[in-house]
Amino acid sequence: MDEKPCAVVLLSGGLDSATCLAIAHDEGFSVKALAVLYGQRHAVELDAARRVATAHEIGDLMTAHIDLRIFGGSALTADVEVPKHEAVEEIGADIPVTYVPARNTIFLSYALAYAEVVGARDIFIGVNALDYSGYPDCRPEFIKSFQKMANLATKAGVEDRERPLTIHTPLMQMTKAEIIRKGVALGVDYSLTHSCYDPSKDGLACGRCDSCLLRRKGFEEAGVPDPTRYMAGVHGNK
Amino acid sequence: MDEKPCAVVLLSGGLDSATCLAIAHDEGFSVKALAVLYGQRHAVELDAARRVATAHEIGDLMTAHIDLRIFGGSALTADVEVPKHEAVEEIGADIPVTYVPARNTIFLSYALAYAEVVGARDIFIGVNALDYSGYPDCRPEFIKSFQKMANLATKAGVEDRERPLTIHTPLMQMTKAEIIRKGVALGVDYSLTHSCYDPSKDGLACGRCDSCLLRRKGFEEAGVPDPTRYMAGVHGNK
Repeated sequence: MDEKPCAVVLLSGGLDSATCLAIAHDEGFSVKALAVLYGQRHAVELDAARRVATAHEIGDLMTAHIDLRIFGGSALTADVEVPKHEAVEEIGADIPVTYVPARNTIFLSYALAYAEVVGARDIFIGVNALDYSGYPDCRPEFIKSFQKMANLATKAGVEDRERPLTIHTPLMQMTKAEIIRKGVALGVDYSLTHSCYDPSKDGLACGRCDSCLLRRKGFEEAGVPDPTRYMAGVHGNK
Repeated sequence: MDEKPCAVVLLSGGLDSATCLAIAHDEGFSVKALAVLYGQRHAVELDAARRVATAHEIGDLMTAHIDLRIFGGSALTADVEVPKHEAVEEIGADIPVTYVPARNTIFLSYALAYAEVVGARDIFIGVNALDYSGYPDCRPEFIKSFQKMANLATKAGVEDRERPLTIHTPLMQMTKAEIIRKGVALGVDYSLTHSCYDPSKDGLACGRCDSCLLRRKGFEEAGVPDPTRYMAGVHGNK
């Protein structure tokens, strides 16, 4: 009998969520991974999520299909060009066009439903306030507020107040380099993960979208070889 | 040019949400209706939502397709029998099996995304704390907490704090009879709406699920003829 407490981990197939999953495992949770397919350009992430789930032997990956394209409003869901830069410093301070309206609210709502059905009181999400400070739904105050709401929203929250639902954000205050070092220490195979917002049809990373730039810089700063397969002309840390 | 402020109204096709839509109209909002199709047994509600949207001339009904059946955990999404009773008094005080885990959290999250894309700062949801006191996500404290979270979750909430997002719940403290009288006063045609959790293939209401019982009692108490088409042997208020 599995006596470990169960946790739902939101798994996108990216570097952050793969690390988040490894941390949840390391903290002693029995992990239920949930991938949310939202009509994004980088659906190739889902394949990465499946590879990560398989590598960590966590059983079937629960996949929720939602379609945020009906609303539009983001470079990740509508026909807006994904911005490209040559260096991290060129990324602006404003909320980027890759912001998807209410995305993490919707993701966490699904995780909340799944957690309630499987009896989990812990949800892990790999949000990060340092690298993605432009996204309002990656900030600690948002997470704290969601957690409070979640405990009022559910049957579990109402009927068993002694075990409140907790939203874990272990990566919140870590730099990308720290996340990578932590993941390497926990045995994460980053060659299985995918971060690019605008990959080629073969799944090669563009190397110049915000997500690629942050990832490349992270491997460089961590002093860890970058296993990402980039398009011709782009090179990660060796 | 339409200078009315825009509001997103969650429209299920039921009696409550149709009244809610009429109230939003009456309060001077330009209404964007959002129906969420969630693999429920009563998908016939969607047809009702379309009829209501057409009757109120609010343009296209935005429909979000989500699948909560993947999680199960409710008589409305899994293969669990919908409970039937002969009278409202038989409905228990516990949270019923028709509770769908995190449903209103997910619905409101979609409404939040839609509101942000169309520039609406007002969301209407027809929840009611009196008749459905068993559902945790129909209580005022949940709505208040969601509203707070929503203003931290979105770009609009962060960039334009002078126009905070408001979740309107005009039916919260009304009895079903009061809701019906209000709707009749605003010209709602309840023959277009559908409430039954377990309708026949032809869309006839069972008359004995919790939702039907509350609806029948509402028409009776309001002294309004019940236009619902029930299965053989069940009669609404004449």
